[in-house]
Amino acid sequence: MTSVVVQDSYPDDVAVCYGCGRLNADGLHIQTHWDGREGRATFHPQPFHLAVTGVVYGGLLASLVDCHSVGTAAAARYAADGRRVGSEPVLRYVTGMLQVSYLAPTPIGVPLTLRAWPVEVGERKVVVDCELSADGTVTVTGHTIAVRLRDPAQHP
Amino acid sequence: MTSVVVQDSYPDDVAVCYGCGRLNADGLHIQTHWDGREGRATFHPQPFHLAVTGVVYGGLLASLVDCHSVGTAAAARYAADGRRVGSEPVLRYVTGMLQVSYLAPTPIGVPLTLRAWPVEVGERKVVVDCELSADGTVTVTGHTIAVRLRDPAQHP
Repeated sequence: MTSVVVQDSYPDDVAVCYGCGRLNADGLHIQTHWDGREGRATFHPQPFHLAVTGVVYGGLLASLVDCHSVGTAAAARYAADGRRVGSEPVLRYVTGMLQVSYLAPTPIGVPLTLRAWPVEVGERKVVVDCELSADGTVTVTGHTIAVRLRDPAQHP
Repeated sequence: MTSVVVQDSYPDDVAVCYGCGRLNADGLHIQTHWDGREGRATFHPQPFHLAVTGVVYGGLLASLVDCHSVGTAAAARYAADGRRVGSEPVLRYVTGMLQVSYLAPTPIGVPLTLRAWPVEVGERKVVVDCELSADGTVTVTGHTIAVRLRDPAQHP
């Protein structure tokens, strides 16, 4: 299965997210590539995305975990239903709870890679675990509870 | 006691944080006002800090909770030592774990206010709880484990 970008499936009205919305000109444009089992993403922090000198800002890392996990949640729900990502009715999840553990400083100046996978796929709630790596070392882990918007056109 | 801005006490080398560093020209400049018992902060999101239309981005809210709670952690440790914020040796905490619960959508277009207070003040680890409000309603709660940098000049 070739991978798909989950955020490309978001309807225009809910594609304005600062973290991952393709329609937010000022945003980070995080993209979740779903391969049928897990989501993968790559991100290049800007030089000013610092915590202390040489280390990536934790709030940015939380943002990456957040959007990538929520995207993975939607994809996992499509998969559980045997449906293609983006097929009708379109699914859009938002964050109910986000937990991020900072295991080690994340160095700035290298691409960051994220893996996320579902650990519980309910009808409205999907729980996703996530790992963020820099230079092959996992520096951050995430645990996210994503909640489905009942009607993406009538959010929230 | 008049309040002090905790981030003003950070040594230059660790004052570059994208969230709260006074020396990060591109940053958010979150400021924690400590009154001796708790930290308070106010933040005005930009129009592009969206999750979905009308709602503030969760990654930004996590960033606000993060920097404000870490600032409150430092202040609480100074207070436990009977010291003035910024007195030598200077304390600088970083985030070990961040948990954010999104209780309700946070509306964009109004100032956001944060309260944070210590729930456990150890020698190296300080645990801080936080509430974020919009229009008088608590929309986000945070629980943060902050860890002290052993030597702010030799981070991390």
